[in-house]
Amino acid sequence: MNELTKKAALSQKAFKSLSLSESEYRNSMLEELANSLNDNKNQILNENNRDYSQSKLKNDKNSATLERLLLSKKNIDDIISGVLNISELPDPIGDVFDERKLENGLKVYKKRVPLGVIGVIYESRPNVTIDISALCIKSGNCAVLRGGKESIHTNIYLTQLIQESLKNNQLPSNSITLIENTDRALVMEMLKLKQYIDLVIPRGSANLVKLVGENAEMPAVTGGIGISHIYIDSDANIEKAISITSNAKLSNPYVCNALDTILVNKTIANEFLPQIVEELSSHEVEIKCDNRALNIIGSQKANVSPATDNDWGKEFLSLTLSIKIVEDVDEAISHIQNFTFRAGHTDTIITENNQIAELFLKQVDSSVVMVNASTRFNDGGQLGLGAEVAISTSKFHARGPMGLESLTSYKWIVEGDGHIRT
Amino acid sequence: MNELTKKAALSQKAFKSLSLSESEYRNSMLEELANSLNDNKNQILNENNRDYSQSKLKNDKNSATLERLLLSKKNIDDIISGVLNISELPDPIGDVFDERKLENGLKVYKKRVPLGVIGVIYESRPNVTIDISALCIKSGNCAVLRGGKESIHTNIYLTQLIQESLKNNQLPSNSITLIENTDRALVMEMLKLKQYIDLVIPRGSANLVKLVGENAEMPAVTGGIGISHIYIDSDANIEKAISITSNAKLSNPYVCNALDTILVNKTIANEFLPQIVEELSSHEVEIKCDNRALNIIGSQKANVSPATDNDWGKEFLSLTLSIKIVEDVDEAISHIQNFTFRAGHTDTIITENNQIAELFLKQVDSSVVMVNASTRFNDGGQLGLGAEVAISTSKFHARGPMGLESLTSYKWIVEGDGHIRT
Repeated sequence: MNELTKKAALSQKAFKSLSLSESEYRNSMLEELANSLNDNKNQILNENNRDYSQSKLKNDKNSATLERLLLSKKNIDDIISGVLNISELPDPIGDVFDERKLENGLKVYKKRVPLGVIGVIYESRPNVTIDISALCIKSGNCAVLRGGKESIHTNIYLTQLIQESLKNNQLPSNSITLIENTDRALVMEMLKLKQYIDLVIPRGSANLVKLVGENAEMPAVTGGIGISHIYIDSDANIEKAISITSNAKLSNPYVCNALDTILVNKTIANEFLPQIVEELSSHEVEIKCDNRALNIIGSQKANVSPATDNDWGKEFLSLTLSIKIVEDVDEAISHIQNFTFRAGHTDTIITENNQIAELFLKQVDSSVVMVNASTRFNDGGQLGLGAEVAISTSKFHARGPMGLESLTSYKWIVEGDGHIRT
Repeated sequence: MNELTKKAALSQKAFKSLSLSESEYRNSMLEELANSLNDNKNQILNENNRDYSQSKLKNDKNSATLERLLLSKKNIDDIISGVLNISELPDPIGDVFDERKLENGLKVYKKRVPLGVIGVIYESRPNVTIDISALCIKSGNCAVLRGGKESIHTNIYLTQLIQESLKNNQLPSNSITLIENTDRALVMEMLKLKQYIDLVIPRGSANLVKLVGENAEMPAVTGGIGISHIYIDSDANIEKAISITSNAKLSNPYVCNALDTILVNKTIANEFLPQIVEELSSHEVEIKCDNRALNIIGSQKANVSPATDNDWGKEFLSLTLSIKIVEDVDEAISHIQNFTFRAGHTDTIITENNQIAELFLKQVDSSVVMVNASTRFNDGGQLGLGAEVAISTSKFHARGPMGLESLTSYKWIVEGDGHIRT
């Protein structure tokens, strides 16, 4: 049995006990972990520095990877707040719902239970180690972690701190295990290990998510990638349209809920386009336009160029977006349906017309559909979940921002008094 | 493009329109289908007779398969009632839930939407063709059907009736398609077709469910197989214990919620065992006992024999069960945990002691856990779902009896008034 199989088996064994543990032990473990992270900040930074130096020395990583793996004191403080925040959330485990009394007197209800062992595959960011462990422990789930090789020393040390906090709170320390062998082949092996792993969550690049989605033999959460559209309706309030569109692109252009494509109703294009282009241009956004938009904007601007077929339904993850003029809301909806079929992420309509808004909200089937709000609100924290596991674009199990509840299942409970089936 | 791929693509295309159709059209389609089945009863029986004769002639099917494919007028009437029953259930699509107003004024809620294209793989029973099609149409989902070759003429005719009813109600007729090529290789091909099929549901034998669970590249509902235990506690009411245990085995021994193993607390075994053995023996149940139970029952009885290791955690699906004496509720729970880990189906405790009942309900993690009620209640109809898609033993998406809601997902809707993320 190699390290991966052995640790997955240990985590599965730990699940039997963790899944039945009382809320107070899991919460007090998280509080202790927060303290421990604070007390050992210097040692965490030392280990992290070791990873950073090695990666830099090897010179085989680009600067973005190097940046992602590096932790500052401020980063660790943020991680600690995250853990404390999770510890204060209501415990989903044991929640009773769908309760009813049947005509024959049977009492029937559902009770929330943890899912099992979560396999987590991530890249260089070591904060994922703590973040996902806290979410799993809080929801009574075990985790087998497989982080990037760049952060291995940081991850080993953080996992030690987690396991100590588990042990000190009468919880099985193997509830969280880390695969220390960072051989790439283990990722594929992990995706086949459905004997021990109940759900796999990739946290990282679109390529990683794709790899996991295509190869995992157990259920996988595939999200964090997807296209975001904003449709500016003929009845849009121009101020809201400008403010929301700018915010959707500029507040963070590098994330999955950042705006990719603006669809503009032809009747409002003359008024809207010059203003939004001025605003976006002043922040150095590259703008790809269809011909009709180009005619209004003018192609002489430095950052404006004709769109190609590839610029529709494209997740830019950068300071680039595309703009297309449409005849009406129906063409906007068709465009979104065509380019996001089965994988819609976030789509917004800007309009003051309730009927048009309703049509859009009904016909666009994305994980989050909005009216008069920035696409950047598609986020577990922003939408009141307290913490976020991922943003799922799948329709199976959980969709959209996934909070603690998405790491749970339920069992049915039936209480009778000698009831038999006739 | 072969027939399978072509029809799956047609169903996916149909989904865009079916998923947005109004409830009244889907319900009126189901009512029309019920009438059409009634009007064409003779033709259905003719086609079914053709299938039956061909299978009988080929002599390659056992009598159980032959029986399963044969329809009577009474069967068709039952199928018709099923369709009408489904048409009268509340429409899950469009249901709003988890509604809240955030501090910043954003209105956030979830709205139920259909899942997509459901691939259904089944064996000789032609009633599945109508049953699953009605469930899918009701919930706005399309289906690609792949039934057994024994029932192909019946299935082709039934699908014609379905498609006519769809067309007459302004719904896309390809919402339901049937693969007429019954080559076995197509099953494996279907399980790879995640480009078009969103969820696959096997309806049939444990072997079929296993094949689909192991090979499907899209999510699969794996259920309808599993072990059922009853634990007779020291504080059990003996009358309830006898009545529930007999009912759990005898009311239908051939189904997944039938009792497989009785665990008896040692302090009540002397009183309980002779009575239950007498009752079960009078119905010719084969009883496999551990040594301690054997000592009480006596091994000279014709239908009593020593249990082997294989008789624990075994789904008998026949007039056989196993009996084991345990020290206490903890041993009963451990036994159940060991033999049903990650695949618990139905487990019941018989006790008048609330604390013991609570312990059992908490620690046993099966799809349905019961106190003082027959395992045979683990059924969508019995538990008030109105109709049943399957009984899932998976913890992902839906667990236990799956009703219409389990064929749905949701989208988040966010209503703002110019909200941007700060």
